[in-house]
Amino acid sequence: MSTKATFYHAGCPVCVDAERTVAEGLDRARFDVEIVHLGDHADRVAEAERFGVKSVPALVIDAQVYHINHGADLSALKG
Amino acid sequence: MSTKATFYHAGCPVCVDAERTVAEGLDRARFDVEIVHLGDHADRVAEAERFGVKSVPALVIDAQVYHINHGADLSALKG
Repeated sequence: MSTKATFYHAGCPVCVDAERTVAEGLDRARFDVEIVHLGDHADRVAEAERFGVKSVPALVIDAQVYHINHGADLSALKG
Repeated sequence: MSTKATFYHAGCPVCVDAERTVAEGLDRARFDVEIVHLGDHADRVAEAERFGVKSVPALVIDAQVYHINHGADLSALKG
């Protein structure tokens, strides 16, 4: 049974780097990794907020948020 | 050929959680993961600093630093 891992980002350089290294570095045998670009999917900003995401890039695993470096505040992605 | 990934921490709850989920979640077929407790290995604080680690927990992969959440500032670990 895979654990769901959601990587929220906004296409920023810091995000892309963390996606390529950390998110794509997760063991796919154990994690079902979903990459969500919040700029393209503004409808999912509220979902990220509910998990406690404050900035991107962020990885949510088992409802725990791991903010990885800092690319942009979530507030900057809200319309 | 594995990529070296070094996870620096200080035993704090934020560190332990990130270690169990993110550091141990990396694909071991692709990463050679080393876990370094800077409280136990104060001689490696300077090495972490050279990589640009400002706080723990932090993951260094290919000389890039990924600060994951915030447990403690590196300066607090210096004697």
